[in-house]
Amino acid sequence: MTLPTITRSWVESANGHPDFPLQNLPLGVFSTQGSAPRCGVAIGEQIFDLEAALDAGLFEGPAKAAAQATRGGQLNAFFELGRPARVALRERLLELLGEGSSLRAKVEALGSKLLPLAADCQMHLPAKISDYTDFYVGIEHAQNVGKLFRPDNPLLPNYKYVPIGYHGRASTIRVSGADVRRPKGQTLPAGQTEPSFGPCARLDYELELGIWIGQGNQMGEPIAIGDAAEHIAGFCLLNDWSARDIQAWEYQPLGPFLSKSFITSISPWVVTAEALEPFRQAQAPRPEGDPQPLPYLLDKRDQAAGGFDIELEVLLITQAMREQGLPAHRLTLSNTQYMYWTVAQMVAHHSVNGCQLQAGDLFGSGTLSGPQSGQFGSLLEITEGGKKPIELASGEVRKFLEDGDEIILRGRCRREGFASIGFGECRGTVQPAR
Amino acid sequence: MTLPTITRSWVESANGHPDFPLQNLPLGVFSTQGSAPRCGVAIGEQIFDLEAALDAGLFEGPAKAAAQATRGGQLNAFFELGRPARVALRERLLELLGEGSSLRAKVEALGSKLLPLAADCQMHLPAKISDYTDFYVGIEHAQNVGKLFRPDNPLLPNYKYVPIGYHGRASTIRVSGADVRRPKGQTLPAGQTEPSFGPCARLDYELELGIWIGQGNQMGEPIAIGDAAEHIAGFCLLNDWSARDIQAWEYQPLGPFLSKSFITSISPWVVTAEALEPFRQAQAPRPEGDPQPLPYLLDKRDQAAGGFDIELEVLLITQAMREQGLPAHRLTLSNTQYMYWTVAQMVAHHSVNGCQLQAGDLFGSGTLSGPQSGQFGSLLEITEGGKKPIELASGEVRKFLEDGDEIILRGRCRREGFASIGFGECRGTVQPAR
Repeated sequence: MTLPTITRSWVESANGHPDFPLQNLPLGVFSTQGSAPRCGVAIGEQIFDLEAALDAGLFEGPAKAAAQATRGGQLNAFFELGRPARVALRERLLELLGEGSSLRAKVEALGSKLLPLAADCQMHLPAKISDYTDFYVGIEHAQNVGKLFRPDNPLLPNYKYVPIGYHGRASTIRVSGADVRRPKGQTLPAGQTEPSFGPCARLDYELELGIWIGQGNQMGEPIAIGDAAEHIAGFCLLNDWSARDIQAWEYQPLGPFLSKSFITSISPWVVTAEALEPFRQAQAPRPEGDPQPLPYLLDKRDQAAGGFDIELEVLLITQAMREQGLPAHRLTLSNTQYMYWTVAQMVAHHSVNGCQLQAGDLFGSGTLSGPQSGQFGSLLEITEGGKKPIELASGEVRKFLEDGDEIILRGRCRREGFASIGFGECRGTVQPAR
Repeated sequence: MTLPTITRSWVESANGHPDFPLQNLPLGVFSTQGSAPRCGVAIGEQIFDLEAALDAGLFEGPAKAAAQATRGGQLNAFFELGRPARVALRERLLELLGEGSSLRAKVEALGSKLLPLAADCQMHLPAKISDYTDFYVGIEHAQNVGKLFRPDNPLLPNYKYVPIGYHGRASTIRVSGADVRRPKGQTLPAGQTEPSFGPCARLDYELELGIWIGQGNQMGEPIAIGDAAEHIAGFCLLNDWSARDIQAWEYQPLGPFLSKSFITSISPWVVTAEALEPFRQAQAPRPEGDPQPLPYLLDKRDQAAGGFDIELEVLLITQAMREQGLPAHRLTLSNTQYMYWTVAQMVAHHSVNGCQLQAGDLFGSGTLSGPQSGQFGSLLEITEGGKKPIELASGEVRKFLEDGDEIILRGRCRREGFASIGFGECRGTVQPAR
C-alpha cells in the first residue's frame, strides 16, 4: 500500500502525539460513563466513536460496511472482514480527521459525543477472545531461560524448526489497568520433597507482543504461509504474568498451567499492519549454521517483508517509589526484532495441522528479550532466577515482584522521516494474595 | 437427593433402553431438517424438545425458568443456573414422561414436533465452549506412558500432589460423528537429527471423561473444594485424538500443541450428576504411602461421595472389517474409577490461583486406562508405542490408526437394582491427510 499523504490532523493533540498521531489510528473498545462499550479509534488524546460517526452518516461505501461491522462493542466481526475493510476504514478516517478535511466542521459540531477525551473513557477488551495461544519465539529469552537449566545446551533441539507454542487461558485475559491478584498455589521449596501451598513468592512479568487474528480458517484447512499475513488483524502489548515457583513444580510433563492462568494483561488498542508498514525491518539472515525453515514455513514475500521494528519497554514503580515521587525504573528496553519466527510463520504453523483459527483469537509472541543486559524481558532473566537482585532508587531491592509493584509495558516505532507511533500502555499493579 | 420413584416411561423405547431410560434424561442440542439448533432431552429413541414444550405451556415455576434458560440452542445459560434449576427441570420431566403422566395425551398430541425420533435429528455441541482444559488424572495411563520413557520411575514427583492439566484448544472440539482429518506436521524420524514434514504416522485415540462446568467464578476468587461439585453441570465422553509422532517432537518445553489441536470429539449428551447419583463408588483409599491431598484439595464430603463407577469402552472398525461385515473390535474396557483425583478436586485446583471458570467450559479427565491389558485407553499403551501391533479378525494389524478406521467410545453405568444408564456414543472416522 502507499503511505498516507495526509500526515497532520486537525485534532491538535494528535500532531506529535507519542502514541496516536494520525498515522496510527488503532482500534479499540471503550465506554463513557453509563454507556455500553462501543468501538472507536484513538486519535491524540481523544477517541473517535465509530458508532456515533455511523449514526451521523460520516461513512459510505466500503468504509461504511467496515464501520458497521464494529457495531456491538466487539471487533470480532470487523476482524473477520480482513484487510480490505481495514484499509477502507483507515482511508476514510484519514480523510475525516486529516488537516483540511471538508468534514471537520460536521465532526466538531458533534463534540464529545463523537470525540470524547480518552481520559474520560474506560477501555475494554477489543474482542471476544475464543482461544489464546502463547508462543515462545523470542530466541534470546529461550536461550536465557534455557541457560538457567542447561548451561551447555540452552536451546532444545526443536527450537529452530518449530515455532514453539502452547494453548493459554482465554478467560483471564484483561485489559490494561486490571489488578493482578498474587496467585496461591503449590510450590516445592528448595531442598524439600513435599510441596507447600501458599502465595506465589516468585511473581514475574513477561514482555510480549500480542497478535490479533483476523479472518479465520475452516477446521482441516491450513493457512498457507503466503496467505498468513492476511489473517492478522493487528497487534498489542501483552504481559504474560508468571508465577515462577508454581511453574517450576507444575509444568512437567504438560507445560505451564496455573502459573500463567491467573491473569494476562494486554494493551487496549489494536495497532494495524497498515500503521506498522513503515516500521518493517528486513529479517536478519539466520545465523550461519541455522537450518532453513521447512517449506510450509518459508515464503519469499514474508522473508522480504521482514519483521517489525517495535521498541518495547518495561517500567517498574513500587509503592515506596510512588510515595517518594521517584520516576519509574526501566527494567527492559527490547525490540520485536528478537523474534526468531515471523507472525506469518506463527499463523502457518498453528493451522498446519488443520487447527481452526477464528477472528479475535489472540497470540502472544513469547517473551521478547534482547541478548544484552538491560534487554531482558522478565525478572527471571534479569535477576538470574532471583540470584542477583536489582537495586532501585528507593533503596529497595527486587528479585521478583512485591505487592504494590506496578509494571508498565510500552511499545513504540521510530524511523527517520516518519511520525512515530506507539501502542499506548499495558499496566498492572500487584495486589496481595487473598 | 432422593432417587426418583417413577422408573418407567410411557415413551416405550425408553424402558430398558441401554443409554436413555427415564432415569437418565441427559441434555443436548439438536436440529431437525431445516430447523435451527435447540435444546432437548434424550428419552429412549426420541428427543424431548424443550423449546416446543415451553411453547406448549408444559412448564411452570422453577422448571419453567430452567427450561427458558435452554432457549437459543446452547446450554450455557442453563449450566450457569446450577443444580437447583437442573433438579427442577428433571423433576418436571419425570412427571411429564413418567408412566401414568396426566399430561401424556397432551404431549403425544404434539407428535414429532415435541418428540422427534433421534434418528431424524442432527446433534450439535451442547454449549459454546469458552475454554477447554485437559487433565491427566488417569494414574494408570500416566504410569503406562511414563514407563515407556522412564521404566524405573514412571510417575513424575508432582503427580500425587498436583492434578496435572494443561490448556487445550476449544475451537476444534466437535460433536460425535465429525470426521477426523489426519493432521500433517513436523516429526523427527528415528535416528535423524532433522525433522520431516508430512502426514502423522502415529495417530491415536485417548479415552477420556468430559466434564461440563456449570456456574463459574469471578477472576481472583477460587472455588473451595467443598463447593466444587456445585460448579459441575454434567458429563460426556471425550476422545482426545493424538498425533504421537508430532507430539514427541513438539512438546518440549511447553507441552502438547498441534499434536492435539486438530480435533477433539465429544459425545453430544450431557449426563447430569443427578442421573449418575446411584453410580458413585467410594473412592479407594489412597495406596499405602501415597501423600494426603493438600488441604485445598481435601473435603470429607467429596471423599465420602467417592468417584463415579462408569464403564468405558472403545471399539474399532476398519474399512476392511466393514466390508467383511465383521463386528467392531474392542480395544479398551476401562472405568472412571481409575481417576486419581475427583472432579471436585479438578475444579478446586483449576481455580485455586484465581483462574476464572465459566459456564460451558469443558474439562477432559485425561486418558482413563486401567492397570490390566485390555484396559488401556490408547494405542500408545496397547501396542507399547507401536512395538506390539494388535491383530484384528479381518487379518489386519494395527500399531496406530489408519485412514478409514472408526473409533467408537461408549460409557455405561450398571448397578444391581437400578436401571442402567449410558452416555450414547462418541464416534469419529479417520480421513486421509489433505
